[in-house]
Amino acid sequence: MSPPSCGEICRKPTKGQAKDALVKIRGIVSKNTGFLGAYVQILTGDAGLLYEEIRDAPIVSPHGHCDPAWFANDEAFANPAALLVVPDHYVFRMLFSQGADLADLGIGSAGGAANPRDVFRLFASNWHLFLGTPSRFWISYVLTETLGISTPLSAATSDQVYDQIAEKLAHPDFRPRALFDRFGIEVLATTDAALDDLAHHQAIRDSDWQGRVIPTFRPDSLLDPADPSFRTNLDQLAVLTGADTCTFDGYLTALRQRRAVFIAAGATATDHAIEAVYTEWLAEPETLFQRLRAGTGSAEDAQRFYGHMLIEMAQMSVEDGLVMQIHGGSRRNTNQAVMARFGRDKGADIPVATDWVRGLEPLLNRVGNAPEFTLILFTLDETTYARELAPMAGHWPCLRIGPPWWFHDSAAGIARYFDQVVETAGYYNLAGFNDDTRAFLSIPARHDLWRRGVALHLSEQVARSACGMTDARALATLLATDLARDAYRLSG
Amino acid sequence: MSPPSCGEICRKPTKGQAKDALVKIRGIVSKNTGFLGAYVQILTGDAGLLYEEIRDAPIVSPHGHCDPAWFANDEAFANPAALLVVPDHYVFRMLFSQGADLADLGIGSAGGAANPRDVFRLFASNWHLFLGTPSRFWISYVLTETLGISTPLSAATSDQVYDQIAEKLAHPDFRPRALFDRFGIEVLATTDAALDDLAHHQAIRDSDWQGRVIPTFRPDSLLDPADPSFRTNLDQLAVLTGADTCTFDGYLTALRQRRAVFIAAGATATDHAIEAVYTEWLAEPETLFQRLRAGTGSAEDAQRFYGHMLIEMAQMSVEDGLVMQIHGGSRRNTNQAVMARFGRDKGADIPVATDWVRGLEPLLNRVGNAPEFTLILFTLDETTYARELAPMAGHWPCLRIGPPWWFHDSAAGIARYFDQVVETAGYYNLAGFNDDTRAFLSIPARHDLWRRGVALHLSEQVARSACGMTDARALATLLATDLARDAYRLSG
Amino acid sequence: MSPPSCGEICRKPTKGQAKDALVKIRGIVSKNTGFLGAYVQILTGDAGLLYEEIRDAPIVSPHGHCDPAWFANDEAFANPAALLVVPDHYVFRMLFSQGADLADLGIGSAGGAANPRDVFRLFASNWHLFLGTPSRFWISYVLTETLGISTPLSAATSDQVYDQIAEKLAHPDFRPRALFDRFGIEVLATTDAALDDLAHHQAIRDSDWQGRVIPTFRPDSLLDPADPSFRTNLDQLAVLTGADTCTFDGYLTALRQRRAVFIAAGATATDHAIEAVYTEWLAEPETLFQRLRAGTGSAEDAQRFYGHMLIEMAQMSVEDGLVMQIHGGSRRNTNQAVMARFGRDKGADIPVATDWVRGLEPLLNRVGNAPEFTLILFTLDETTYARELAPMAGHWPCLRIGPPWWFHDSAAGIARYFDQVVETAGYYNLAGFNDDTRAFLSIPARHDLWRRGVALHLSEQVARSACGMTDARALATLLATDLARDAYRLSG
Repeated sequence: MSPPSCGEICRKPTKGQAKDALVKIRGIVSKNTGFLGAYVQILTGDAGLLYEEIRDAPIVSPHGHCDPAWFANDEAFANPAALLVVPDHYVFRMLFSQGADLADLGIGSAGGAANPRDVFRLFASNWHLFLGTPSRFWISYVLTETLGISTPLSAATSDQVYDQIAEKLAHPDFRPRALFDRFGIEVLATTDAALDDLAHHQAIRDSDWQGRVIPTFRPDSLLDPADPSFRTNLDQLAVLTGADTCTFDGYLTALRQRRAVFIAAGATATDHAIEAVYTEWLAEPETLFQRLRAGTGSAEDAQRFYGHMLIEMAQMSVEDGLVMQIHGGSRRNTNQAVMARFGRDKGADIPVATDWVRGLEPLLNRVGNAPEFTLILFTLDETTYARELAPMAGHWPCLRIGPPWWFHDSAAGIARYFDQVVETAGYYNLAGFNDDTRAFLSIPARHDLWRRGVALHLSEQVARSACGMTDARALATLLATDLARDAYRLSG
Repeated sequence: MSPPSCGEICRKPTKGQAKDALVKIRGIVSKNTGFLGAYVQILTGDAGLLYEEIRDAPIVSPHGHCDPAWFANDEAFANPAALLVVPDHYVFRMLFSQGADLADLGIGSAGGAANPRDVFRLFASNWHLFLGTPSRFWISYVLTETLGISTPLSAATSDQVYDQIAEKLAHPDFRPRALFDRFGIEVLATTDAALDDLAHHQAIRDSDWQGRVIPTFRPDSLLDPADPSFRTNLDQLAVLTGADTCTFDGYLTALRQRRAVFIAAGATATDHAIEAVYTEWLAEPETLFQRLRAGTGSAEDAQRFYGHMLIEMAQMSVEDGLVMQIHGGSRRNTNQAVMARFGRDKGADIPVATDWVRGLEPLLNRVGNAPEFTLILFTLDETTYARELAPMAGHWPCLRIGPPWWFHDSAAGIARYFDQVVETAGYYNLAGFNDDTRAFLSIPARHDLWRRGVALHLSEQVARSACGMTDARALATLLATDLARDAYRLSG
Repeated sequence: MSPPSCGEICRKPTKGQAKDALVKIRGIVSKNTGFLGAYVQILTGDAGLLYEEIRDAPIVSPHGHCDPAWFANDEAFANPAALLVVPDHYVFRMLFSQGADLADLGIGSAGGAANPRDVFRLFASNWHLFLGTPSRFWISYVLTETLGISTPLSAATSDQVYDQIAEKLAHPDFRPRALFDRFGIEVLATTDAALDDLAHHQAIRDSDWQGRVIPTFRPDSLLDPADPSFRTNLDQLAVLTGADTCTFDGYLTALRQRRAVFIAAGATATDHAIEAVYTEWLAEPETLFQRLRAGTGSAEDAQRFYGHMLIEMAQMSVEDGLVMQIHGGSRRNTNQAVMARFGRDKGADIPVATDWVRGLEPLLNRVGNAPEFTLILFTLDETTYARELAPMAGHWPCLRIGPPWWFHDSAAGIARYFDQVVETAGYYNLAGFNDDTRAFLSIPARHDLWRRGVALHLSEQVARSACGMTDARALATLLATDLARDAYRLSG
């Protein structure tokens, strides 16, 4: 009677089992009211006045994950499931946590055969799972405000709502460019691999459409020797740039060249996603580079080299003016069975405790006082708001604190953010808001939630006499649009 | 003039000194009002409506530390001190922190000679120390609601209150079974060593009383090679089961057998209390087992083996359906002098920072996707609510977040819990409430505090339009009873 | 095209560049309203009643960094910049974070040539940067309440306000002793190096002024072998005491003697500022001492020795009654370029995560149960409030939790403190308030902010029926003055 092996346990649950397992607490809530009012919190008093001040301000979206192809091709979105469920890891991770099979949600190649209508029904039938989450707010807002649908969502109404959405999506008013314009988006930054040819961005610029969609330089796979494709990526980098990526100097030259290409395409920022925050300045990077280039470096070599390259990137930012972003502290793809079957980014990324102080000290002591440099930090470890990020941003000239990120981009998360960063960092060391989403339709909902949070926070500041309404109004606009424009150098 | 040794400093304070030291700030509060109103917060508006909805719901108590002998024998509780002071580590730790000698509080063999009336007076005279703590709420509730005593507590009234309580305890209505019934307890789980013969549980089932009291399988001392009695416990396990606990397979067989015995006695869950959260799957556990069985293993061997056994326990749960609980992050018995004189669990257990993500990754990647598996996590490190537990429970199908535990089972602790877990985990990945107490009389008070916290939280959700009152009512019942029933499989 | 070296990047920004860089978001807020009402939050209801109870209570200031020379010499403060900007690291760090050159703020020898009027203008022009920070509250309070100035602060009014302040400072009513008396300061503790001759303190006692200014024994530089001047400090210690600081026993004798000198000068406490919380009892400290005395010890030797000496200090406190304070978890002088140009304590101290539990265990198990011992802990890692400090103080007889420190001495910081410590530690294990400031004029403002926080917290406790108003009034006085008097043994 030996214990079941991982294979037996992890891979064998049949769809039938998984469906049975959904919902963990099946039967407990017999009726789902499908309440659709989550977005309509009435803000009164000063909060209401401050919200009105910024409610209809333009949307500045300096960091996110929309697909530039949408705006290059301007084709209709395929169907409600492909728009609202399949790309939204907030949505499918919750359904998975309650026993849904990701294949039944149309995820990955395993989900290729799923009927979009069935996918949507699986989501609609479990709408109650999202009670209390920002997803419920965002989707309610999208359905009601953006799509004009008033039918409460439930298993019973799923097909009806599906059809209503599908009808909208077929209309020219709901094509990507039309929505972009209707949303009042002033600028939208995408996130693009450093090896990307930026053809979609070129197509957008070549079109007669005036929307400002710009790329962001994301070089992770060229900097992290632990990436399985690191060496082939460097080969590809050589092909793309003509530089000799077999020497460290050639490698740096190639990176500089790619940055210049992104700048020419409108980029104003880079982005780095790292798990542990670690930087180190190597006196002799060439040796380590050669070992890693040859595939003979150790895990420690890889970490030290990556730490060095973050500083190189910071120094290139001093030279070329690209604002540097670091998203730190997410442990990626922690569920091996899901990774094997469905691939990366399938809801199993989990935050870990982060040490920004020691982790960034080598980088900051190298370039942190350079007046030309801006570095925006995003944390998933809220304990670092008051302990590390606010004191650091309240000292280092280069630093700005990014808005609440990912799991913390929520009503309570926003309140905790203001509560914990403002007293030490003030407002002017913040980077405003960014929606960081690949769910295009949710962009207005996300900015609206932030703006409500701003209004609530500032009205409390007025109530405690931290400022008067004149200052509060100025701060509201600052937080809604101006800090983002400034931090990302979008006005120039 | 050498410094005093530990012995001189730690062990020599005479009772006289200790009494003098009480209270640290003696004389500051000249009058103790003995205010007894802590339990009567008036909830108004939606909070009041939601509280009424669940106020009188049955009590589901799936995890705690009541003594099954109370219900097997149904004898009157000995005296007010033995009921309210001696077993309550929340109470005696606070008095100790202000200079009381634990012996004067009747603790341990050193306290055997203490007069219960004196013990109670020491407590009553220091009632003001509990201002602001949940103990003050719980005890006020017990005195007023459960025992019907309206005399404010103070040094002056101590004997009077003592006599009033003693009179009640002598009455048949205040025997354990009568109170159990009066409290409306639907089910009460105790926590029992894996080697326990469960005779009291058998006696309860054999009696004509209908109360449902069930055991919980707690195998710590059979799994942790660092436990001083680990090897003799395994010998005892062999005697009890007839299995050969000198081989790893025999050891597993014996554990499976004990689990089956607990299941037959009504158990639906196991419980594990660990300091560091560490799991690891060993390809060859036998080697390590033999070293540890022989007493020649290292501390690292012990940790790795324990980490492996937690995964074995999880796999057995997949087989036999017992819900697994992990209470992690408490550093036990940190005061060596108190440990030496009074023994374990005397108020010196202190939480430490906990890493659930990396610590559980091996276990979760082994069984975390199994639809049959439920794992409930309890933390004393609140920073893990939003950073780790909510994201993990919002992904892994097996996971549920346990309610606020120990020091955090309090009004503000409950508010922080909801604030930090719901937005990412939703409500359906929670495990409802459990009182986790050995203070039997405080059970209704603890559930009442939770229910007030639920009502306050949900009324705030309604105010911010996160849901309507219909959903809020359903969620209130879910949080008061249904999630606990479901998570612990108590309905079947 | 090699990357710029640290020297090029860090040291070369000219003043011109730095000025241009100020403000990071220049032009965004076109008008600074100069709102000066930050200190006038109206407290109503129970909060108002409780605030009135303690608003005018004496100021007990048991820990801070005022210069005793001010009170020994009683000379007028030099000028508004020297009073309000130059010594206030909260102020200049914020300006630095937005691009100001510290030299332009009159900091360090590099700032010696700065015109005070220009320094003040740089501050006044950037008054909006402090929106939302406690500095804005404190300075508004000082200007309005203490200095009687009603002109809103801005670039345009800077010279005018400067002149108004200067006029006040020239008046005898604004000399240090007169302000001390006007502020109602009952006792003010300074912080003094263990090698200090305490001449200013002697001069105060020898004067006919009755103000109580007492020293605090700060021996860091005599205990930390990592301090560059450790060995010369020990030489100086030998000269000062006549003891042989080349043997460990002589070293201890000398330390005891310095403590006695401080006690004779009125000291009731010691203070220790450490980065990592680490204690260890060495069986044979002599060996390590000799290595470190000879300058041949390792970094690990230094840490272990320092950890041992903290326990020696605790044991001396048991002997001589000095209350021990530990301020833990600040990583000092993290900006090397600022350190090189401007010296220590220039706003680059950043908190790091702290482990109080394991770090203090050896010390506590040595002396933590001694009734004569008081140890007050200050943390910059708020996650330790509920997880570590409150459970520890709720057990160990010696422990008290210090008030919110540094970045957390703010309206929201105070609210978080009460929210997270009271339920487990109660009120009587707290140490009341201390202002910990070198900005003498801000002392009443800081106590006022605390008292408002106390009133708000207690009114919420009353609202949730945690206590009645009678208890709340007693607790208000306890938190405003009595706990501080008692914890620091100032009443005797």
